[in-house]
Amino acid sequence: MRIGFDARHGLVAIIDGRIAPIGAQAGVPADQPDPLLWALQHGVTFTDLDVPDPVAEADPAALRAPIMRPPKVIAAPVNYIDHKIEMSEQKTIAEYGVFLKASTSVIGPDSRIVLPYTDKRIDQEGELAVVIGRGGRHIVREEALAHVFGYAPLLDISVRSTEDRSTRKSYDTFTPVGPWITTADEIADPDALALRTWVNGDLRQHASTADLIFDVATLIEYASSIMTLEPGDVIATGTPAGVGPLADGDRVTVAIEGLGELSIPVTSEGAIPYSDRPGAL
Amino acid sequence: MRIGFDARHGLVAIIDGRIAPIGAQAGVPADQPDPLLWALQHGVTFTDLDVPDPVAEADPAALRAPIMRPPKVIAAPVNYIDHKIEMSEQKTIAEYGVFLKASTSVIGPDSRIVLPYTDKRIDQEGELAVVIGRGGRHIVREEALAHVFGYAPLLDISVRSTEDRSTRKSYDTFTPVGPWITTADEIADPDALALRTWVNGDLRQHASTADLIFDVATLIEYASSIMTLEPGDVIATGTPAGVGPLADGDRVTVAIEGLGELSIPVTSEGAIPYSDRPGAL
Repeated sequence: MRIGFDARHGLVAIIDGRIAPIGAQAGVPADQPDPLLWALQHGVTFTDLDVPDPVAEADPAALRAPIMRPPKVIAAPVNYIDHKIEMSEQKTIAEYGVFLKASTSVIGPDSRIVLPYTDKRIDQEGELAVVIGRGGRHIVREEALAHVFGYAPLLDISVRSTEDRSTRKSYDTFTPVGPWITTADEIADPDALALRTWVNGDLRQHASTADLIFDVATLIEYASSIMTLEPGDVIATGTPAGVGPLADGDRVTVAIEGLGELSIPVTSEGAIPYSDRPGAL
Repeated sequence: MRIGFDARHGLVAIIDGRIAPIGAQAGVPADQPDPLLWALQHGVTFTDLDVPDPVAEADPAALRAPIMRPPKVIAAPVNYIDHKIEMSEQKTIAEYGVFLKASTSVIGPDSRIVLPYTDKRIDQEGELAVVIGRGGRHIVREEALAHVFGYAPLLDISVRSTEDRSTRKSYDTFTPVGPWITTADEIADPDALALRTWVNGDLRQHASTADLIFDVATLIEYASSIMTLEPGDVIATGTPAGVGPLADGDRVTVAIEGLGELSIPVTSEGAIPYSDRPGAL
Protein backbone atom coordinates (compact mmCIF):
# COMPACT_ATOMS: atom_id res chain seq x y z
CA MET A 1 0.00 0.00 0.00
CA ARG A 2 1.11 3.56 -0.73
CA ILE A 3 0.30 5.86 2.18
CA GLY A 4 0.40 9.65 1.94
CA PHE A 5 -0.84 12.77 3.67
CA ASP A 6 -3.22 14.97 1.70
CA ALA A 7 -3.90 18.50 2.94
CA ARG A 8 -7.66 18.10 2.44
CA HIS A 9 -8.23 14.37 3.02
CA GLY A 10 -5.61 13.65 5.69
CA LEU A 11 -4.14 10.16 5.71
CA VAL A 12 -4.75 8.57 2.31
CA ALA A 13 -3.96 5.47 0.33
CA ILE A 14 -2.80 6.16 -3.22
CA ILE A 15 -4.35 3.63 -5.60
CA ASP A 16 -3.86 3.76 -9.36
CA GLY A 17 -3.31 7.52 -9.28
CA ARG A 18 -6.30 8.24 -7.07
CA ILE A 19 -6.52 8.88 -3.33
CA ALA A 20 -8.70 7.16 -0.75
CA PRO A 21 -8.94 8.63 2.78
CA ILE A 22 -8.01 6.01 5.39
CA GLY A 23 -7.62 8.07 8.58
CA ALA A 24 -10.99 7.00 10.00
CA GLN A 25 -10.41 3.34 9.06
CA ALA A 26 -7.04 3.51 10.83
CA GLY A 27 -8.73 4.96 13.93
CA VAL A 28 -6.70 8.18 13.86
CA PRO A 29 -8.40 11.02 15.82
CA ALA A 30 -9.32 13.86 13.46
CA ASP A 31 -7.19 16.43 15.31
CA GLN A 32 -3.89 14.57 14.95
CA PRO A 33 -1.38 16.77 13.11
CA ASP A 34 0.82 13.78 12.17
CA PRO A 35 -1.68 10.97 11.47
CA LEU A 36 0.74 8.30 10.25
CA LEU A 37 3.00 8.81 13.27
CA TRP A 38 -0.01 8.46 15.54
CA ALA A 39 -1.08 5.27 13.73
CA LEU A 40 2.39 3.73 14.00
CA GLN A 41 2.64 4.67 17.69
CA HIS A 42 -0.72 2.99 18.26
CA GLY A 43 0.14 -0.20 16.40
CA VAL A 44 -2.27 0.22 13.49
CA THR A 45 -1.75 -2.57 10.94
CA PHE A 46 -2.36 -1.06 7.53
CA THR A 47 -2.37 -4.33 5.65
CA ASP A 48 -5.65 -5.24 7.44
CA LEU A 49 -7.40 -1.97 6.56
CA ASP A 50 -10.67 -1.96 4.66
CA VAL A 51 -9.67 0.74 2.16
CA PRO A 52 -12.67 2.70 0.83
CA ASP A 53 -13.11 3.74 -2.79
CA PRO A 54 -10.89 6.60 -3.97
CA VAL A 55 -12.47 10.05 -3.86
CA ALA A 56 -10.17 12.17 -6.03
CA GLU A 57 -7.23 12.19 -8.41
CA ALA A 58 -3.88 12.07 -6.62
CA ASP A 59 -1.68 15.13 -7.11
CA PRO A 60 1.75 13.97 -5.90
CA ALA A 61 3.05 17.56 -5.88
CA ALA A 62 0.32 18.61 -3.43
CA LEU A 63 0.96 15.90 -0.85
CA ARG A 64 2.52 16.76 2.50
CA ALA A 65 5.30 14.73 4.08
CA PRO A 66 3.81 11.29 4.81
CA ILE A 67 5.29 11.57 8.29
CA MET A 68 5.84 15.10 9.62
CA ARG A 69 7.87 14.73 12.83
CA PRO A 70 9.64 11.39 13.05
CA PRO A 71 10.83 10.80 16.64
CA LYS A 72 14.31 10.43 15.16
CA VAL A 73 15.87 10.91 11.74
CA ILE A 74 18.91 8.63 11.79
CA ALA A 75 21.24 8.99 8.81
CA ALA A 76 24.13 7.04 7.33
CA PRO A 77 27.31 8.91 6.33
CA VAL A 78 29.55 7.49 3.60
CA ASN A 79 27.52 4.35 2.98
CA TYR A 80 28.37 3.89 -0.74
CA ILE A 81 31.98 3.30 -1.87
CA ASP A 82 31.62 5.56 -4.95
CA HIS A 83 30.47 8.46 -2.73
CA LYS A 84 33.43 7.80 -0.40
CA ILE A 85 35.75 8.22 -3.39
CA GLU A 86 34.09 11.40 -4.72
CA MET A 87 34.26 13.01 -1.26
CA SER A 88 37.93 11.95 -0.74
CA GLU A 89 36.78 10.29 2.48
CA GLN A 90 39.21 8.02 4.30
CA LYS A 91 36.48 6.38 6.37
CA THR A 92 33.01 4.93 5.96
CA ILE A 93 29.94 4.39 8.12
CA ALA A 94 31.85 1.57 9.86
CA GLU A 95 34.06 4.24 11.51
CA TYR A 96 31.64 7.21 11.52
CA GLY A 97 28.56 5.45 12.85
CA VAL A 98 25.29 7.24 12.24
CA PHE A 99 24.32 10.87 12.74
CA LEU A 100 21.03 12.52 13.59
CA LYS A 101 19.08 15.08 11.58
CA ALA A 102 16.52 17.38 13.21
CA SER A 103 12.95 16.16 12.72
CA THR A 104 12.03 19.79 12.03
CA SER A 105 13.93 19.52 8.73
CA VAL A 106 11.31 17.16 7.25
CA ILE A 107 9.14 18.47 4.40
CA GLY A 108 6.94 16.88 1.76
CA PRO A 109 6.29 17.37 -1.96
CA ASP A 110 4.10 20.43 -1.30
CA SER A 111 7.05 22.38 0.08
CA ARG A 112 10.42 23.63 -1.17
CA ILE A 113 14.07 23.45 -0.17
CA VAL A 114 15.27 26.79 1.26
CA LEU A 115 19.00 27.47 0.86
CA PRO A 116 20.22 29.34 3.98
CA TYR A 117 23.45 30.85 2.61
CA THR A 118 24.32 32.80 -0.52
CA ASP A 119 27.95 31.68 -0.63
CA LYS A 120 28.24 28.08 0.61
CA ARG A 121 27.89 25.02 -1.57
CA ILE A 122 24.69 23.16 -0.68
CA ASP A 123 24.26 19.70 -2.23
CA GLN A 124 21.48 17.31 -3.07
CA GLU A 125 21.88 13.74 -1.79
CA GLY A 126 19.27 11.24 -3.01
CA GLU A 127 18.62 8.36 -0.61
CA LEU A 128 16.37 5.45 0.29
CA ALA A 129 14.45 6.13 3.51
CA VAL A 130 13.39 3.31 5.83
CA VAL A 131 10.44 4.00 8.15
CA ILE A 132 10.40 1.92 11.34
CA GLY A 133 7.06 0.31 12.24
CA ARG A 134 7.96 -1.72 15.30
CA GLY A 135 10.66 -0.36 17.58
CA GLY A 136 13.29 -2.16 19.56
CA ARG A 137 16.84 -2.26 20.87
CA HIS A 138 19.53 -4.75 19.88
CA ILE A 139 17.52 -5.93 16.89
CA VAL A 140 19.44 -8.74 15.17
CA ARG A 141 20.11 -8.60 11.46
CA GLU A 142 17.96 -11.61 10.69
CA GLU A 143 14.86 -9.99 12.21
CA ALA A 144 15.58 -6.41 11.16
CA LEU A 145 13.33 -6.17 8.09
CA ALA A 146 10.32 -7.27 10.16
CA HIS A 147 10.66 -3.95 12.02
CA VAL A 148 10.23 -1.90 8.82
CA PHE A 149 6.89 -0.23 8.13
CA GLY A 150 7.82 1.03 4.70
CA TYR A 151 10.17 2.80 2.32
CA ALA A 152 10.29 6.14 0.51
CA PRO A 153 12.59 8.39 -1.53
CA LEU A 154 14.37 11.01 0.60
CA LEU A 155 16.72 13.93 -0.01
CA ASP A 156 19.46 14.65 2.52
CA ILE A 157 20.33 18.28 1.74
CA SER A 158 23.79 19.22 3.01
CA VAL A 159 25.78 22.42 3.46
CA ARG A 160 29.51 21.94 2.76
CA SER A 161 31.06 23.73 5.73
CA THR A 162 33.02 22.95 8.91
CA GLU A 163 30.12 22.05 11.19
CA ASP A 164 29.12 18.62 12.44
CA ARG A 165 26.80 16.74 10.12
CA SER A 166 23.90 17.35 12.54
CA THR A 167 24.18 21.08 11.83
CA ARG A 168 25.02 20.97 8.13
CA LYS A 169 22.06 18.70 7.37
CA SER A 170 19.40 19.92 9.81
CA TYR A 171 18.33 23.27 8.37
CA ASP A 172 14.56 23.52 8.05
CA THR A 173 13.46 21.96 4.70
CA PHE A 174 16.65 19.84 4.41
CA THR A 175 14.89 16.45 4.60
CA PRO A 176 12.27 16.11 1.86
CA VAL A 177 10.48 12.73 2.10
CA GLY A 178 7.78 11.25 -0.11
CA PRO A 179 5.69 11.52 -2.13
CA TRP A 180 4.29 8.60 -0.11
CA ILE A 181 5.51 5.63 1.93
CA THR A 182 5.23 2.23 0.28
CA THR A 183 4.58 -0.47 2.87
CA ALA A 184 7.29 -3.09 3.28
CA ASP A 185 5.10 -5.98 2.04
CA GLU A 186 5.32 -4.51 -1.50
CA ILE A 187 9.14 -4.39 -1.58
CA ALA A 188 10.65 -7.85 -2.00
CA ASP A 189 14.24 -6.70 -1.48
CA PRO A 190 15.13 -3.16 -0.30
CA ASP A 191 18.76 -3.88 -1.16
CA ALA A 192 18.15 -4.16 -4.89
CA LEU A 193 16.39 -0.91 -5.83
CA ALA A 194 17.50 1.44 -8.60
CA LEU A 195 17.92 5.03 -7.34
CA ARG A 196 18.16 8.07 -9.61
CA THR A 197 18.44 11.78 -8.79
CA TRP A 198 18.04 14.63 -11.25
CA VAL A 199 18.52 18.37 -10.94
CA ASN A 200 16.56 20.31 -13.58
CA GLY A 201 16.21 17.09 -15.54
CA ASP A 202 19.96 16.32 -15.61
CA LEU A 203 20.70 12.91 -14.16
CA ARG A 204 23.23 13.30 -11.32
CA GLN A 205 22.92 10.06 -9.38
CA HIS A 206 22.20 6.59 -10.74
CA ALA A 207 22.93 3.68 -8.46
CA SER A 208 21.44 0.64 -6.80
CA THR A 209 20.84 0.09 -3.11
CA ALA A 210 22.69 -3.17 -3.77
CA ASP A 211 25.85 -1.06 -3.36
CA LEU A 212 25.11 0.04 0.22
CA ILE A 213 28.07 -0.67 2.54
CA PHE A 214 25.69 -1.23 5.50
CA ASP A 215 22.58 -2.69 3.87
CA VAL A 216 19.12 -1.98 5.30
CA ALA A 217 19.15 -4.87 7.78
CA THR A 218 22.67 -4.02 8.98
CA LEU A 219 21.71 -0.36 9.41
CA ILE A 220 18.80 -1.38 11.64
CA GLU A 221 20.98 -3.80 13.59
CA TYR A 222 23.72 -1.18 13.98
CA ALA A 223 21.46 1.77 14.89
CA SER A 224 19.51 -0.32 17.38
CA SER A 225 22.76 -1.44 19.03
CA ILE A 226 23.14 2.21 20.05
CA MET A 227 19.67 3.62 20.52
CA THR A 228 16.17 2.28 20.95
CA LEU A 229 14.30 2.53 17.67
CA GLU A 230 10.74 3.80 17.96
CA PRO A 231 7.74 3.56 15.61
CA GLY A 232 8.01 6.33 13.02
CA ASP A 233 11.79 6.68 13.22
CA VAL A 234 13.26 7.31 9.78
CA ILE A 235 16.61 5.92 8.67
CA ALA A 236 18.21 7.74 5.71
CA THR A 237 20.43 5.04 4.25
CA GLY A 238 23.10 7.25 2.63
CA THR A 239 23.78 8.61 -0.81
CA PRO A 240 25.74 7.26 -3.80
CA ALA A 241 28.14 9.29 -5.98
CA GLY A 242 26.83 12.28 -7.90
CA VAL A 243 26.08 14.82 -5.20
CA GLY A 244 26.27 18.38 -6.45
CA PRO A 245 25.35 21.98 -5.72
CA LEU A 246 21.87 23.46 -5.75
CA ALA A 247 20.87 26.98 -6.75
CA ASP A 248 17.83 29.19 -6.56
CA GLY A 249 15.17 28.03 -9.01
CA ASP A 250 16.43 24.45 -9.32
CA ARG A 251 14.16 21.44 -9.11
CA VAL A 252 15.48 18.25 -7.50
CA THR A 253 13.89 14.90 -8.25
CA VAL A 254 14.72 11.54 -6.69
CA ALA A 255 13.08 8.35 -7.92
CA ILE A 256 13.46 4.89 -6.43
CA GLU A 257 12.29 1.71 -8.12
CA GLY A 258 8.83 0.80 -6.83
CA LEU A 259 8.61 3.79 -4.47
CA GLY A 260 7.70 6.68 -6.78
CA GLU A 261 9.30 10.00 -7.50
CA LEU A 262 9.81 12.93 -5.12
CA SER A 263 10.23 16.30 -6.84
CA ILE A 264 10.98 19.53 -4.95
CA PRO A 265 11.78 23.10 -6.02
CA VAL A 266 14.69 25.04 -4.53
CA THR A 267 14.72 28.66 -3.41
CA SER A 268 17.36 30.94 -1.92
CA GLU A 269 14.78 33.37 -0.60
CA GLY A 270 16.09 34.91 2.63
CA ALA A 271 19.60 33.49 2.17
CA ILE A 272 22.43 35.37 3.91
CA PRO A 273 26.21 35.35 3.57
CA TYR A 274 27.69 32.57 5.71
CA SER A 275 29.81 35.13 7.57
CA ASP A 276 26.63 36.88 8.75
CA ARG A 277 25.30 33.83 10.63
CA PRO A 278 24.88 34.15 14.40
CA GLY A 279 28.00 33.13 16.32
CA ALA A 280 30.36 33.64 13.35
CA LEU A 281 33.96 34.29 14.39
CA MET B 1 8.83 26.64 40.47
CA ARG B 2 10.55 23.25 40.47
CA ILE B 3 8.70 20.78 38.23
CA GLY B 4 9.35 17.04 38.27
CA PHE B 5 7.79 13.74 37.28
CA ASP B 6 6.95 11.35 40.08
CA ALA B 7 6.16 7.72 39.21
CA ARG B 8 3.12 7.69 41.49
CA HIS B 9 1.90 11.30 41.37
CA GLY B 10 2.80 12.25 37.79
CA LEU B 11 3.65 15.89 37.16
CA VAL B 12 4.59 17.51 40.48
CA ALA B 13 5.87 20.73 41.93
CA ILE B 14 8.68 20.28 44.45
CA ILE B 15 8.19 22.67 47.36
CA ASP B 16 10.45 22.72 50.42
CA GLY B 17 11.32 19.05 49.97
CA ARG B 18 7.73 17.93 49.43
CA ILE B 19 5.80 17.17 46.25
CA ALA B 20 2.47 18.55 45.10
CA PRO B 21 0.72 16.96 42.09
CA ILE B 22 -0.05 19.60 39.45
CA GLY B 23 -1.00 17.49 36.40
CA ALA B 24 -4.73 18.11 36.81
CA GLN B 25 -4.20 21.84 37.47
CA ALA B 26 -2.11 22.02 34.28
CA GLY B 27 -4.91 20.28 32.35
CA VAL B 28 -2.74 17.33 31.34
CA PRO B 29 -4.83 14.26 30.37
CA ALA B 30 -4.15 11.39 32.80
CA ASP B 31 -2.91 9.03 30.07
CA GLN B 32 -0.10 11.28 28.84
CA PRO B 33 3.23 9.44 29.17
CA ASP B 34 5.24 12.68 29.02
CA PRO B 35 3.09 15.20 30.92
CA LEU B 36 5.48 18.17 30.89
CA LEU B 37 6.04 17.83 27.15
CA TRP B 38 2.29 17.75 26.62
CA ALA B 39 1.87 20.86 28.81
CA LEU B 40 4.57 22.79 26.94
CA GLN B 41 3.11 21.77 23.56
CA HIS B 42 -0.28 23.04 24.74
CA GLY B 43 0.99 26.36 26.05
CA VAL B 44 0.37 25.76 29.76
CA THR B 45 1.73 28.66 31.82
CA PHE B 46 3.03 27.18 35.05
CA THR B 47 3.55 30.49 36.80
CA ASP B 48 -0.27 30.96 36.84
CA LEU B 49 -0.99 27.54 38.35
CA ASP B 50 -2.89 27.21 41.60
CA VAL B 51 -0.52 24.72 43.22
CA PRO B 52 -2.25 22.46 45.78
CA ASP B 53 -0.77 21.47 49.13
CA PRO B 54 2.05 18.94 49.00
CA VAL B 55 1.03 15.33 49.57
CA ALA B 56 4.33 13.56 50.28
CA GLU B 57 8.02 13.93 50.94
CA ALA B 58 10.06 14.40 47.77
CA ASP B 59 12.55 11.63 47.03
CA PRO B 60 14.81 13.13 44.34
CA ALA B 61 16.34 9.71 43.61
CA ALA B 62 12.91 8.30 42.76
CA LEU B 63 11.91 10.98 40.26
CA ARG B 64 11.76 10.20 36.55
CA ALA B 65 13.16 12.49 33.88
CA PRO B 66 11.13 15.73 34.09
CA ILE B 67 10.75 15.52 30.30
CA MET B 68 11.00 12.04 28.76
CA ARG B 69 11.16 12.53 24.99
CA PRO B 70 12.19 16.05 24.03
CA PRO B 71 11.42 16.66 20.33
CA LYS B 72 15.12 17.47 19.96
CA VAL B 73 18.18 17.29 22.19
CA ILE B 74 20.53 19.91 20.75
CA ALA B 75 24.03 19.90 22.20
CA ALA B 76 27.03 22.22 22.16
CA PRO B 77 30.48 20.75 21.44
CA VAL B 78 33.58 22.50 22.79
CA ASN B 79 31.75 25.40 24.41
CA TYR B 80 34.23 26.09 27.27
CA ILE B 81 37.85 27.10 26.52
CA ASP B 82 39.29 24.92 29.32
CA HIS B 83 37.57 21.83 27.84
CA LYS B 84 38.92 22.76 24.39
CA ILE B 85 42.42 22.71 25.86
CA GLU B 86 42.00 19.41 27.74
CA MET B 87 40.66 17.72 24.58
CA SER B 88 43.47 19.16 22.39
CA GLU B 89 40.73 20.60 20.18
CA GLN B 90 41.68 23.08 17.50
CA LYS B 91 38.13 24.32 17.06
CA THR B 92 35.15 25.38 19.14
CA ILE B 93 31.39 25.50 18.75
CA ALA B 94 31.87 28.46 16.38
CA GLU B 95 33.30 26.02 13.80
CA TYR B 96 31.54 22.79 14.86
CA GLY B 97 28.03 24.14 15.24
CA VAL B 98 25.69 22.01 17.31
CA PHE B 99 25.01 18.28 17.22
CA LEU B 100 21.94 16.24 18.03
CA LYS B 101 21.52 13.52 20.65
CA ALA B 102 18.78 10.89 20.40
CA SER B 103 15.78 11.71 22.58
CA THR B 104 15.73 8.01 23.52
CA SER B 105 18.95 8.61 25.49
CA VAL B 106 17.13 10.69 28.13
CA ILE B 107 16.77 9.23 31.63
CA GLY B 108 15.96 10.62 35.06
CA PRO B 109 17.25 10.18 38.60
CA ASP B 110 15.38 6.86 39.01
CA SER B 111 17.51 5.23 36.31
CA ARG B 112 21.17 4.40 35.73
CA ILE B 113 23.83 4.98 33.10
CA VAL B 114 24.57 1.77 31.17
CA LEU B 115 28.07 1.54 29.68
CA PRO B 116 27.83 -0.28 26.31
CA TYR B 117 31.47 -1.37 25.90
CA THR B 118 33.97 -3.11 28.17
CA ASP B 119 37.06 -1.57 26.54
CA LYS B 120 36.27 1.99 25.43
CA ARG B 121 36.68 5.07 27.59
CA ILE B 122 33.25 6.52 28.41
CA ASP B 123 33.24 9.95 30.08
CA GLN B 124 30.95 12.02 32.23
CA GLU B 125 30.26 15.58 31.04
CA GLY B 126 28.29 17.77 33.42
CA GLU B 127 26.24 20.51 31.74
CA LEU B 128 23.53 23.10 32.12
CA ALA B 129 20.37 22.11 30.21
CA VAL B 130 18.02 24.72 28.78
CA VAL B 131 14.41 23.63 28.16
CA ILE B 132 12.59 25.59 25.45
CA GLY B 133 9.07 26.76 26.32
CA ARG B 134 8.13 28.80 23.27
CA GLY B 135 9.52 27.69 19.93
CA GLY B 136 10.65 29.74 16.99
CA ARG B 137 13.08 30.20 14.13
CA HIS B 138 15.61 33.01 13.75
CA ILE B 139 15.17 34.04 17.38
CA VAL B 140 17.33 37.09 18.05
CA ARG B 141 19.74 37.14 20.97
CA GLU B 142 17.90 39.93 22.77
CA GLU B 143 14.66 37.91 22.89
CA ALA B 144 16.20 34.47 23.36
CA LEU B 145 15.77 34.07 27.11
CA ALA B 146 12.03 34.75 26.79
CA HIS B 147 11.81 31.42 24.90
CA VAL B 148 13.21 29.44 27.85
CA PHE B 149 10.85 27.41 30.02
CA GLY B 150 13.47 26.38 32.54
CA TYR B 151 16.86 24.96 33.43
CA ALA B 152 18.21 21.70 34.85
CA PRO B 153 21.45 19.81 35.46
CA LEU B 154 22.27 17.34 32.66
CA LEU B 155 24.96 14.73 31.96
CA ASP B 156 26.18 14.27 28.40
CA ILE B 157 27.72 10.78 28.55
CA SER B 158 30.24 10.22 25.74
CA VAL B 159 32.10 7.25 24.29
CA ARG B 160 35.62 8.18 23.11
CA SER B 161 35.75 6.49 19.71
CA THR B 162 35.82 7.40 16.00
CA GLU B 163 32.10 7.89 15.43
CA ASP B 164 30.23 11.14 14.92
CA ARG B 165 29.11 12.81 18.15
CA SER B 166 25.50 11.80 17.41
CA THR B 167 26.52 8.14 17.79
CA ARG B 168 29.04 8.47 20.61
CA LYS B 169 26.57 10.41 22.78
CA SER B 170 23.21 8.80 21.89
CA TYR B 171 23.37 5.40 23.57
CA ASP B 172 20.29 4.71 25.66
CA THR B 173 20.76 6.24 29.16
CA PHE B 174 23.43 8.73 27.96
CA THR B 175 21.42 11.89 28.73
CA PRO B 176 20.43 12.00 32.41
CA VAL B 177 18.37 15.15 33.17
CA GLY B 178 16.93 16.35 36.45
CA PRO B 179 16.12 15.91 39.22
CA TRP B 180 13.60 18.59 38.22
CA ILE B 181 13.33 21.62 35.95
CA THR B 182 13.49 25.02 37.61
CA THR B 183 11.37 27.54 35.75
CA ALA B 184 13.21 30.45 34.16
CA ASP B 185 11.59 33.10 36.38
CA GLU B 186 13.66 31.78 39.32
CA ILE B 187 17.02 32.11 37.54
CA ALA B 188 18.13 35.72 37.28
CA ASP B 189 21.13 34.98 35.05
CA PRO B 190 21.74 31.54 33.49
CA ASP B 191 25.22 32.69 32.50
CA ALA B 192 26.46 33.01 36.08
CA LEU B 193 25.76 29.61 37.66
CA ALA B 194 28.34 27.49 39.47
CA LEU B 195 28.51 23.93 38.07
CA ARG B 196 30.17 21.01 39.83
CA THR B 197 30.43 17.33 38.88
CA TRP B 198 31.62 14.53 41.14
CA VAL B 199 32.31 10.86 40.50
CA ASN B 200 32.11 8.79 43.70
CA GLY B 201 32.39 12.00 45.68
CA ASP B 202 35.58 13.20 43.95
CA LEU B 203 35.14 16.65 42.42
CA ARG B 204 35.99 16.45 38.71
CA GLN B 205 34.40 19.59 37.26
CA HIS B 206 34.04 22.97 38.90
CA ALA B 207 33.23 25.88 36.64
CA SER B 208 30.79 28.69 36.01
CA THR B 209 28.43 29.04 33.08
CA ALA B 210 29.97 32.53 32.87
CA ASP B 211 32.76 30.79 30.92
CA LEU B 212 30.51 29.49 28.12
CA ILE B 213 31.87 30.47 24.67
CA PHE B 214 28.32 30.67 23.27
CA ASP B 215 26.23 31.80 26.23
CA VAL B 216 22.63 30.66 26.64
CA ALA B 217 21.11 33.45 24.53
CA THR B 218 23.68 32.99 21.76
CA LEU B 219 23.07 29.23 21.73
CA ILE B 220 19.35 29.83 21.23
CA GLU B 221 20.01 32.42 18.53
CA TYR B 222 22.50 30.13 16.78
CA ALA B 223 20.45 26.91 16.99
CA SER B 224 17.30 28.67 15.82
CA SER B 225 19.19 30.14 12.84
CA ILE B 226 19.46 26.52 11.66
CA MET B 227 16.39 24.70 12.88
CA THR B 228 12.99 25.61 14.24
CA LEU B 229 12.98 25.25 18.01
CA GLU B 230 9.90 23.55 19.44
CA PRO B 231 8.41 23.52 22.95
CA GLY B 232 10.22 20.89 25.01
CA ASP B 233 13.44 20.97 22.99
CA VAL B 234 16.45 20.62 25.27
CA ILE B 235 19.73 22.42 24.67
CA ALA B 236 22.76 20.90 26.43
CA THR B 237 25.08 23.86 26.71
CA GLY B 238 28.42 22.04 26.75
CA THR B 239 30.85 20.85 29.40
CA PRO B 240 33.83 22.51 31.10
CA ALA B 241 37.20 20.85 31.79
CA GLY B 242 37.34 17.78 34.02
CA VAL B 243 35.66 15.09 31.94
CA GLY B 244 36.86 11.61 32.83
CA PRO B 245 36.13 7.91 32.54
CA LEU B 246 33.28 6.06 34.21
CA ALA B 247 33.32 2.48 35.45
CA ASP B 248 30.85 -0.09 36.69
CA GLY B 249 29.60 0.82 40.16
CA ASP B 250 30.43 4.53 39.92
CA ARG B 251 28.00 7.25 40.93
CA VAL B 252 28.00 10.53 38.98
CA THR B 253 26.59 13.69 40.49
CA VAL B 254 26.17 17.07 38.85
CA ALA B 255 24.97 20.10 40.80
CA ILE B 256 24.19 23.53 39.42
CA GLU B 257 23.62 26.60 41.55
CA GLY B 258 19.91 27.07 42.14
CA LEU B 259 18.91 24.00 40.08
CA GLY B 260 19.58 21.11 42.46
CA GLU B 261 21.68 18.00 42.22
CA LEU B 262 21.31 15.08 39.81
CA SER B 263 22.91 11.84 41.01
CA ILE B 264 22.99 8.66 38.89
CA PRO B 265 24.62 5.25 39.33
CA VAL B 266 26.65 3.61 36.57
CA THR B 267 26.56 -0.03 35.46
CA SER B 268 28.40 -2.01 32.82
CA GLU B 269 25.81 -4.78 32.84
CA GLY B 270 25.56 -6.24 29.34
CA ALA B 271 28.66 -4.41 28.07
CA ILE B 272 30.49 -6.01 25.13
CA PRO B 273 33.94 -5.54 23.59
CA TYR B 274 33.86 -2.66 21.09
CA SER B 275 35.09 -5.00 18.37
CA ASP B 276 31.97 -7.16 18.83
CA ARG B 277 29.55 -4.34 17.91
CA PRO B 278 27.40 -4.82 14.79
CA GLY B 279 29.06 -3.51 11.64
CA ALA B 280 32.60 -3.65 13.07
CA LEU B 281 35.30 -3.93 10.42
